[in-house]
Amino acid sequence: MGERVGRFITVEGPDGAGKSTLARAIAEQIEAAGESVVLTREPGDSPIGAAVRALLLDGDDLDRWTEAFLFLADRREHCLHVIRPALLAGKWVVCDRFADSTVAYQGYGAGLDVSELRSMNELATAGLRPDATILLDLDPQVALQRLSDKNRLDRMPLDYHERVREGFLTESRLDPDRWIVLDASRPPEEVRADALRLLAERFAFPVILSPGGDPA
Amino acid sequence: MGERVGRFITVEGPDGAGKSTLARAIAEQIEAAGESVVLTREPGDSPIGAAVRALLLDGDDLDRWTEAFLFLADRREHCLHVIRPALLAGKWVVCDRFADSTVAYQGYGAGLDVSELRSMNELATAGLRPDATILLDLDPQVALQRLSDKNRLDRMPLDYHERVREGFLTESRLDPDRWIVLDASRPPEEVRADALRLLAERFAFPVILSPGGDPA
Repeated sequence: MGERVGRFITVEGPDGAGKSTLARAIAEQIEAAGESVVLTREPGDSPIGAAVRALLLDGDDLDRWTEAFLFLADRREHCLHVIRPALLAGKWVVCDRFADSTVAYQGYGAGLDVSELRSMNELATAGLRPDATILLDLDPQVALQRLSDKNRLDRMPLDYHERVREGFLTESRLDPDRWIVLDASRPPEEVRADALRLLAERFAFPVILSPGGDPA
Repeated sequence: MGERVGRFITVEGPDGAGKSTLARAIAEQIEAAGESVVLTREPGDSPIGAAVRALLLDGDDLDRWTEAFLFLADRREHCLHVIRPALLAGKWVVCDRFADSTVAYQGYGAGLDVSELRSMNELATAGLRPDATILLDLDPQVALQRLSDKNRLDRMPLDYHERVREGFLTESRLDPDRWIVLDASRPPEEVRADALRLLAERFAFPVILSPGGDPA
Protein backbone atom coordinates (compact mmCIF):
# COMPACT_ATOMS: atom_id res chain seq x y z
CA MET A 1 0.00 0.00 0.00
CA GLY A 2 2.59 2.55 -1.12
CA GLU A 3 -0.06 5.14 -1.91
CA ARG A 4 -1.46 4.98 1.63
CA VAL A 5 -1.87 8.27 3.41
CA GLY A 6 -4.11 7.81 6.45
CA ARG A 7 -2.95 6.21 9.68
CA PHE A 8 -4.49 3.17 11.30
CA ILE A 9 -4.93 3.10 15.09
CA THR A 10 -6.43 0.20 17.02
CA VAL A 11 -7.56 -0.01 20.64
CA GLU A 12 -7.31 -3.35 22.44
CA GLY A 13 -8.00 -4.73 25.91
CA PRO A 14 -10.83 -6.38 27.85
CA ASP A 15 -14.48 -5.37 27.74
CA GLY A 16 -14.95 -2.89 30.58
CA ALA A 17 -11.58 -1.17 30.12
CA GLY A 18 -13.05 1.79 28.24
CA LYS A 19 -12.00 0.95 24.67
CA SER A 20 -15.03 2.39 22.86
CA THR A 21 -14.95 5.63 24.82
CA LEU A 22 -11.24 6.03 24.19
CA ALA A 23 -11.59 5.17 20.49
CA ARG A 24 -14.23 7.89 20.17
CA ALA A 25 -12.02 10.43 21.97
CA ILE A 26 -9.10 9.62 19.68
CA ALA A 27 -11.28 9.98 16.60
CA GLU A 28 -12.58 13.33 17.84
CA GLN A 29 -9.06 14.63 18.44
CA ILE A 30 -7.87 13.60 15.01
CA GLU A 31 -10.93 15.21 13.48
CA ALA A 32 -10.27 18.35 15.49
CA ALA A 33 -6.83 18.36 13.90
CA GLY A 34 -8.48 18.65 10.49
CA GLU A 35 -8.17 15.06 9.35
CA SER A 36 -10.99 12.82 8.14
CA VAL A 37 -11.51 9.89 10.46
CA VAL A 38 -13.41 6.61 10.26
CA LEU A 39 -14.31 5.20 13.68
CA THR A 40 -15.09 1.51 13.46
CA ARG A 41 -15.07 -1.74 15.44
CA GLU A 42 -14.82 -5.52 15.24
CA PRO A 43 -16.90 -7.57 14.87
CA GLY A 44 -18.00 -5.13 12.18
CA ASP A 45 -21.20 -3.36 11.26
CA SER A 46 -21.46 -4.68 7.67
CA PRO A 47 -24.27 -7.16 6.85
CA ILE A 48 -21.82 -10.04 7.09
CA GLY A 49 -20.30 -8.57 10.25
CA ALA A 50 -23.72 -8.25 11.82
CA ALA A 51 -24.50 -11.93 11.13
CA VAL A 52 -21.14 -12.95 12.49
CA ARG A 53 -21.55 -10.68 15.52
CA ALA A 54 -24.88 -12.31 16.36
CA LEU A 55 -23.45 -15.82 16.05
CA LEU A 56 -20.33 -14.96 17.98
CA LEU A 57 -21.59 -13.02 20.90
CA ASP A 58 -24.92 -14.69 21.53
CA GLY A 59 -24.41 -18.31 20.45
CA ASP A 60 -24.04 -20.70 23.34
CA ASP A 61 -20.94 -22.77 23.61
CA LEU A 62 -19.55 -21.95 20.18
CA ASP A 63 -16.50 -23.98 19.26
CA ARG A 64 -13.23 -22.04 19.36
CA TRP A 65 -12.15 -22.69 15.80
CA THR A 66 -15.62 -21.89 14.50
CA GLU A 67 -15.37 -18.65 16.43
CA ALA A 68 -11.91 -17.92 14.98
CA PHE A 69 -13.03 -18.61 11.39
CA LEU A 70 -16.04 -16.32 11.83
CA PHE A 71 -13.92 -13.50 13.29
CA LEU A 72 -11.52 -13.90 10.35
CA ALA A 73 -14.35 -13.76 7.78
CA ASP A 74 -15.62 -10.60 9.45
CA ARG A 75 -12.11 -9.08 9.58
CA ARG A 76 -11.51 -9.80 5.93
CA GLU A 77 -14.71 -7.96 4.94
CA HIS A 78 -13.92 -5.15 7.34
CA CYS A 79 -10.41 -4.66 5.94
CA LEU A 80 -11.51 -4.85 2.31
CA HIS A 81 -14.62 -2.72 2.49
CA VAL A 82 -14.04 -0.30 5.38
CA ILE A 83 -10.47 0.08 6.62
CA ARG A 84 -8.39 -0.19 3.46
CA PRO A 85 -10.57 2.10 1.29
CA ALA A 86 -10.56 4.73 4.06
CA LEU A 87 -6.77 4.64 4.42
CA LEU A 88 -6.31 4.79 0.66
CA ALA A 89 -8.59 7.83 0.58
CA GLY A 90 -6.25 9.52 3.05
CA LYS A 91 -8.51 9.07 6.05
CA TRP A 92 -7.39 7.99 9.48
CA VAL A 93 -9.02 4.87 10.88
CA VAL A 94 -9.60 4.21 14.57
CA CYS A 95 -10.75 0.66 15.25
CA ASP A 96 -12.12 -0.77 18.50
CA ARG A 97 -10.54 -4.29 18.51
CA PHE A 98 -8.67 -5.80 15.57
CA ALA A 99 -6.43 -8.77 14.72
CA ASP A 100 -4.68 -8.76 18.11
CA SER A 101 -7.98 -9.64 19.79
CA THR A 102 -8.09 -12.94 17.90
CA VAL A 103 -4.55 -13.79 18.98
CA ALA A 104 -5.27 -12.81 22.59
CA TYR A 105 -8.73 -14.37 23.02
CA GLN A 106 -8.74 -17.42 20.74
CA GLY A 107 -4.99 -17.99 20.98
CA TYR A 108 -3.68 -17.18 24.46
CA GLY A 109 -7.12 -17.36 26.09
CA ALA A 110 -8.73 -20.39 24.47
CA GLY A 111 -5.52 -22.24 23.62
CA LEU A 112 -5.63 -22.28 19.82
CA ASP A 113 -2.29 -22.30 18.02
CA VAL A 114 -1.06 -18.69 18.10
CA SER A 115 1.14 -19.02 15.01
CA GLU A 116 -1.76 -20.49 13.00
CA LEU A 117 -3.91 -17.57 14.09
CA ARG A 118 -1.17 -15.09 13.16
CA SER A 119 -0.88 -16.45 9.64
CA MET A 120 -4.66 -16.51 9.21
CA ASN A 121 -4.74 -12.90 10.38
CA GLU A 122 -2.23 -12.09 7.62
CA LEU A 123 -4.64 -13.59 5.10
CA ALA A 124 -7.69 -11.90 6.61
CA THR A 125 -6.07 -8.46 6.72
CA ALA A 126 -4.12 -8.89 3.45
CA GLY A 127 -1.12 -7.77 5.48
CA LEU A 128 -2.70 -4.55 6.75
CA ARG A 129 -1.26 -3.69 10.19
CA PRO A 130 -2.04 -0.90 12.62
CA ASP A 131 0.41 1.99 12.84
CA ALA A 132 -0.31 2.14 16.54
CA THR A 133 -2.19 -0.07 18.97
CA ILE A 134 -3.27 1.15 22.37
CA LEU A 135 -3.64 -1.58 24.96
CA LEU A 136 -5.88 -0.72 27.88
CA ASP A 137 -4.37 -3.10 30.39
CA LEU A 138 -6.66 -3.97 33.28
CA ASP A 139 -7.07 -6.70 35.88
CA PRO A 140 -9.85 -8.93 34.52
CA GLN A 141 -11.71 -8.91 37.84
CA VAL A 142 -11.88 -5.12 37.76
CA ALA A 143 -12.88 -5.14 34.07
CA LEU A 144 -15.67 -7.66 34.64
CA GLN A 145 -17.02 -5.72 37.64
CA ARG A 146 -17.41 -2.67 35.40
CA LEU A 147 -19.63 -4.55 32.93
CA SER A 148 -23.37 -4.43 33.41
CA ASP A 149 -24.11 -6.46 30.28
CA LYS A 150 -21.91 -9.52 29.80
CA ASN A 151 -21.72 -11.40 26.49
CA ARG A 152 -20.66 -15.00 25.98
CA LEU A 153 -16.94 -14.25 25.98
CA ASP A 154 -17.22 -12.06 29.08
CA ARG A 155 -18.79 -14.99 30.92
CA MET A 156 -15.74 -17.21 30.40
CA PRO A 157 -13.86 -18.22 33.60
CA LEU A 158 -11.44 -15.79 35.22
CA ASP A 159 -8.32 -17.78 34.31
CA TYR A 160 -9.31 -17.45 30.65
CA HIS A 161 -9.41 -13.65 31.06
CA GLU A 162 -6.07 -13.74 32.86
CA ARG A 163 -4.50 -15.62 29.95
CA VAL A 164 -6.01 -13.08 27.54
CA ARG A 165 -4.46 -10.24 29.56
CA GLU A 166 -1.04 -11.93 29.58
CA GLY A 167 -1.45 -12.59 25.85
CA PHE A 168 -1.99 -8.93 25.08
CA LEU A 169 1.04 -8.01 27.20
CA THR A 170 3.19 -10.67 25.50
CA GLU A 171 2.17 -9.41 22.07
CA SER A 172 2.95 -5.83 23.08
CA ARG A 173 6.48 -6.83 24.09
CA LEU A 174 7.02 -8.54 20.71
CA ASP A 175 6.34 -5.30 18.83
CA PRO A 176 7.02 -2.38 21.20
CA ASP A 177 7.17 0.17 18.38
CA ARG A 178 3.54 -0.43 17.56
CA TRP A 179 2.01 -0.92 21.02
CA ILE A 180 1.24 1.73 23.62
CA VAL A 181 0.39 0.01 26.90
CA LEU A 182 -1.66 2.03 29.38
CA ASP A 183 -2.71 1.18 32.92
CA ALA A 184 -6.49 1.35 32.61
CA SER A 185 -7.15 1.06 36.33
CA ARG A 186 -6.57 4.81 36.63
CA PRO A 187 -9.34 7.41 36.18
CA PRO A 188 -10.56 7.43 32.54
CA GLU A 189 -9.62 11.09 31.95
CA GLU A 190 -6.04 10.30 32.96
CA VAL A 191 -5.88 7.28 30.63
CA ARG A 192 -7.37 9.35 27.87
CA ALA A 193 -4.92 12.23 28.34
CA ASP A 194 -2.01 9.77 28.22
CA ALA A 195 -3.33 8.09 25.09
CA LEU A 196 -3.84 11.35 23.23
CA ARG A 197 -0.45 12.73 24.27
CA LEU A 198 1.41 9.56 23.25
CA LEU A 199 -0.40 9.37 19.91
CA ALA A 200 0.34 13.05 19.28
CA GLU A 201 4.04 12.39 19.91
CA ARG A 202 4.07 9.30 17.76
CA PHE A 203 2.39 10.88 14.77
CA ALA A 204 3.86 14.39 15.19
CA PHE A 205 0.31 15.54 15.54
CA PRO A 206 0.74 19.12 16.73
CA VAL A 207 -2.94 20.07 16.85
CA ILE A 208 -3.66 17.99 19.87
CA LEU A 209 -1.14 20.09 21.76
CA SER A 210 -1.82 23.39 19.96
CA PRO A 211 -5.35 23.48 18.52
CA GLY A 212 -5.69 25.00 15.09
CA GLY A 213 -2.22 24.06 13.84
CA ASP A 214 -1.67 22.08 10.70
CA PRO A 215 -1.47 18.33 11.15
CA ALA A 216 1.94 16.99 10.17
CA MET B 1 -10.70 -41.60 16.62
CA GLY B 2 -9.69 -45.16 17.52
CA GLU B 3 -13.20 -46.05 18.66
CA ARG B 4 -14.72 -45.08 15.32
CA VAL B 5 -16.98 -47.62 13.71
CA GLY B 6 -18.98 -45.98 10.92
CA ARG B 7 -17.52 -45.12 7.55
CA PHE B 8 -17.41 -41.67 6.01
CA ILE B 9 -18.15 -41.28 2.29
CA THR B 10 -18.12 -37.95 0.44
CA VAL B 11 -19.35 -37.08 -3.04
CA GLU B 12 -17.59 -34.30 -4.96
CA GLY B 13 -17.83 -32.67 -8.38
CA PRO B 14 -19.59 -29.73 -10.04
CA ASP B 15 -23.19 -28.69 -9.51
CA GLY B 16 -25.17 -30.47 -12.19
CA ALA B 17 -23.16 -33.72 -12.06
CA GLY B 18 -25.76 -35.53 -9.95
CA LYS B 19 -24.05 -35.46 -6.54
CA SER B 20 -27.17 -35.16 -4.36
CA THR B 21 -29.00 -37.92 -6.22
CA LEU B 22 -26.00 -40.21 -5.99
CA ALA B 23 -25.44 -39.40 -2.30
CA ARG B 24 -29.07 -40.37 -1.62
CA ALA B 25 -28.70 -43.63 -3.57
CA ILE B 26 -25.56 -44.52 -1.63
CA ALA B 27 -27.26 -43.79 1.68
CA GLU B 28 -30.23 -45.95 0.68
CA GLN B 29 -27.99 -48.86 -0.25
CA ILE B 30 -26.08 -48.69 3.00
CA GLU B 31 -29.34 -48.54 4.90
CA ALA B 32 -30.64 -51.51 2.92
CA ALA B 33 -27.54 -53.34 4.14
CA GLY B 34 -28.73 -52.84 7.71
CA GLU B 35 -26.48 -49.96 8.70
CA SER B 36 -27.59 -46.62 10.15
CA VAL B 37 -26.76 -43.78 7.79
CA VAL B 38 -26.64 -40.01 8.10
CA LEU B 39 -27.05 -38.23 4.76
CA THR B 40 -25.77 -34.67 4.95
CA ARG B 41 -24.26 -31.86 2.88
CA GLU B 42 -22.08 -28.77 2.94
CA PRO B 43 -22.72 -25.95 3.46
CA GLY B 44 -24.63 -27.54 6.33
CA ASP B 45 -28.17 -27.41 7.63
CA SER B 46 -27.34 -26.26 11.19
CA PRO B 47 -28.34 -22.71 12.23
CA ILE B 48 -24.79 -21.52 11.64
CA GLY B 49 -24.60 -23.46 8.40
CA ALA B 50 -27.83 -21.90 7.20
CA ALA B 51 -26.51 -18.39 7.89
CA VAL B 52 -23.27 -19.21 6.14
CA ARG B 53 -25.12 -20.83 3.23
CA ALA B 54 -27.18 -17.69 2.70
CA LEU B 55 -24.11 -15.46 2.77
CA LEU B 56 -22.11 -17.74 0.53
CA LEU B 57 -24.51 -18.64 -2.19
CA ASP B 58 -26.52 -15.46 -2.49
CA GLY B 59 -24.08 -12.69 -1.57
CA ASP B 60 -22.86 -10.76 -4.56
CA ASP B 61 -19.16 -10.58 -5.23
CA LEU B 62 -18.05 -12.12 -1.96
CA ASP B 63 -14.30 -12.01 -1.43
CA ARG B 64 -12.55 -15.36 -1.82
CA TRP B 65 -10.92 -15.49 1.59
CA THR B 66 -14.15 -14.39 3.26
CA GLU B 67 -15.83 -17.22 1.43
CA ALA B 68 -13.13 -19.70 2.52
CA PHE B 69 -13.33 -18.64 6.18
CA LEU B 70 -17.11 -19.01 6.14
CA PHE B 71 -16.94 -22.47 4.54
CA LEU B 72 -14.39 -23.47 7.19
CA ALA B 73 -16.59 -22.19 10.05
CA ASP B 74 -19.48 -24.18 8.63
CA ARG B 75 -17.31 -27.29 8.16
CA ARG B 76 -16.04 -27.10 11.72
CA GLU B 77 -19.61 -27.04 13.10
CA HIS B 78 -20.67 -29.78 10.71
CA CYS B 79 -17.79 -32.06 11.74
CA LEU B 80 -18.25 -31.43 15.46
CA HIS B 81 -22.01 -31.64 15.66
CA VAL B 82 -23.08 -33.92 12.81
CA ILE B 83 -20.38 -36.05 11.21
CA ARG B 84 -18.14 -37.00 14.11
CA PRO B 85 -20.95 -37.89 16.56
CA ALA B 86 -22.60 -40.06 13.90
CA LEU B 87 -19.37 -41.95 13.13
CA LEU B 88 -18.67 -42.41 16.83
CA ALA B 89 -22.17 -43.84 17.25
CA GLY B 90 -21.33 -46.43 14.59
CA LYS B 91 -23.34 -44.77 11.83
CA TRP B 92 -22.18 -44.34 8.28
CA VAL B 93 -22.09 -40.78 6.97
CA VAL B 94 -22.63 -39.80 3.33
CA CYS B 95 -21.83 -36.15 2.67
CA ASP B 96 -22.59 -34.11 -0.44
CA ARG B 97 -19.42 -31.94 -0.73
CA PHE B 98 -16.74 -31.70 1.95
CA ALA B 99 -13.20 -30.36 2.46
CA ASP B 100 -12.08 -31.18 -1.09
CA SER B 101 -14.60 -28.67 -2.45
CA THR B 102 -12.78 -25.85 -0.64
CA VAL B 103 -9.45 -26.93 -2.12
CA ALA B 104 -10.95 -27.28 -5.61
CA TYR B 105 -13.13 -24.14 -5.71
CA GLN B 106 -11.31 -21.61 -3.53
CA GLY B 107 -7.85 -23.07 -4.19
CA TYR B 108 -7.55 -24.32 -7.77
CA GLY B 109 -10.54 -22.34 -9.02
CA ALA B 110 -10.16 -18.97 -7.32
CA GLY B 111 -6.38 -19.09 -6.89
CA LEU B 112 -6.07 -19.10 -3.09
CA ASP B 113 -3.02 -20.88 -1.66
CA VAL B 114 -3.87 -24.58 -1.75
CA SER B 115 -1.50 -25.55 1.06
CA GLU B 116 -2.98 -22.84 3.32
CA LEU B 117 -6.43 -24.19 2.56
CA ARG B 118 -5.32 -27.75 3.27
CA SER B 119 -3.98 -26.85 6.69
CA MET B 120 -7.10 -24.85 7.52
CA ASN B 121 -9.18 -27.86 6.47
CA GLU B 122 -7.18 -29.93 8.97
CA LEU B 123 -8.18 -27.47 11.69
CA ALA B 124 -11.79 -27.28 10.55
CA THR B 125 -12.22 -31.04 10.38
CA ALA B 126 -10.01 -31.80 13.41
CA GLY B 127 -8.24 -34.26 11.11
CA LEU B 128 -11.39 -36.15 10.11
CA ARG B 129 -10.99 -37.51 6.56
CA PRO B 130 -13.36 -39.41 4.30
CA ASP B 131 -12.80 -43.16 3.91
CA ALA B 132 -13.89 -42.81 0.30
CA THR B 133 -14.59 -39.86 -1.96
CA ILE B 134 -16.50 -40.23 -5.18
CA LEU B 135 -15.67 -37.65 -7.80
CA LEU B 136 -18.34 -37.12 -10.43
CA ASP B 137 -16.09 -35.81 -13.17
CA LEU B 138 -17.88 -33.79 -15.82
CA ASP B 139 -17.06 -31.17 -18.43
CA PRO B 140 -18.12 -27.84 -16.85
CA GLN B 141 -20.07 -26.82 -19.96
CA VAL B 142 -22.17 -29.96 -19.73
CA ALA B 143 -22.62 -29.53 -15.97
CA LEU B 144 -23.73 -25.90 -16.31
CA GLN B 145 -26.19 -26.77 -19.08
CA ARG B 146 -27.87 -29.22 -16.72
CA LEU B 147 -28.51 -26.56 -14.08
CA SER B 148 -31.80 -24.70 -14.16
CA ASP B 149 -31.04 -22.68 -11.03
CA LYS B 150 -27.54 -21.23 -10.88
CA ASN B 151 -26.05 -19.81 -7.67
CA ARG B 152 -23.23 -17.29 -7.39
CA LEU B 153 -20.46 -19.88 -7.78
CA ASP B 154 -22.17 -21.52 -10.75
CA ARG B 155 -22.17 -18.15 -12.50
CA MET B 156 -18.37 -17.84 -12.36
CA PRO B 157 -16.60 -17.86 -15.78
CA LEU B 158 -16.00 -21.14 -17.59
CA ASP B 159 -12.21 -21.10 -17.08
CA TYR B 160 -12.85 -20.99 -13.31
CA HIS B 161 -14.93 -24.15 -13.59
CA GLU B 162 -12.25 -25.76 -15.75
CA ARG B 163 -9.63 -25.06 -13.08
CA VAL B 164 -11.98 -26.52 -10.46
CA ARG B 165 -12.35 -29.68 -12.53
CA GLU B 166 -8.57 -30.03 -12.98
CA GLY B 167 -8.17 -29.36 -9.25
CA PHE B 168 -10.46 -32.23 -8.31
CA LEU B 169 -8.59 -34.53 -10.72
CA THR B 170 -5.21 -33.43 -9.34
CA GLU B 171 -6.37 -34.07 -5.79
CA SER B 172 -7.68 -37.49 -6.77
CA ARG B 173 -4.27 -38.44 -8.18
CA LEU B 174 -2.57 -37.38 -4.93
CA ASP B 175 -4.62 -39.85 -2.89
CA PRO B 176 -5.82 -42.61 -5.23
CA ASP B 177 -6.71 -44.96 -2.37
CA ARG B 178 -9.40 -42.59 -1.18
CA TRP B 179 -10.81 -41.26 -4.46
CA ILE B 180 -13.12 -43.05 -6.88
CA VAL B 181 -13.29 -41.03 -10.11
CA LEU B 182 -16.35 -41.61 -12.30
CA ASP B 183 -17.16 -40.24 -15.73
CA ALA B 184 -20.42 -38.43 -15.02
CA SER B 185 -21.22 -37.72 -18.64
CA ARG B 186 -22.71 -41.22 -18.89
CA PRO B 187 -26.36 -42.03 -18.09
CA PRO B 188 -27.04 -41.52 -14.34
CA GLU B 189 -28.08 -45.15 -13.76
CA GLU B 190 -24.73 -46.31 -15.15
CA VAL B 191 -22.78 -43.88 -12.94
CA ARG B 192 -24.84 -44.95 -9.96
CA ALA B 193 -24.29 -48.66 -10.60
CA ASP B 194 -20.54 -48.09 -10.87
CA ALA B 195 -20.44 -46.05 -7.68
CA LEU B 196 -22.39 -48.63 -5.68
CA ARG B 197 -20.34 -51.53 -7.02
CA LEU B 198 -17.00 -49.83 -6.31
CA LEU B 199 -18.08 -48.81 -2.80
CA ALA B 200 -19.30 -52.36 -2.16
CA GLU B 201 -15.90 -53.71 -3.20
CA ARG B 202 -14.03 -51.14 -1.15
CA PHE B 203 -15.98 -51.71 2.04
CA ALA B 204 -16.64 -55.44 1.57
CA PHE B 205 -20.28 -54.57 1.62
CA PRO B 206 -21.93 -57.82 0.46
CA VAL B 207 -25.56 -56.69 0.66
CA ILE B 208 -25.32 -54.43 -2.31
CA LEU B 209 -24.42 -57.48 -4.42
CA SER B 210 -26.58 -60.03 -2.57
CA PRO B 211 -29.52 -58.34 -0.84
CA GLY B 212 -30.35 -59.64 2.61
CA GLY B 213 -26.82 -60.68 3.53
CA ASP B 214 -25.06 -59.42 6.64
CA PRO B 215 -23.03 -56.30 6.21
CA ALA B 216 -19.34 -57.00 6.78
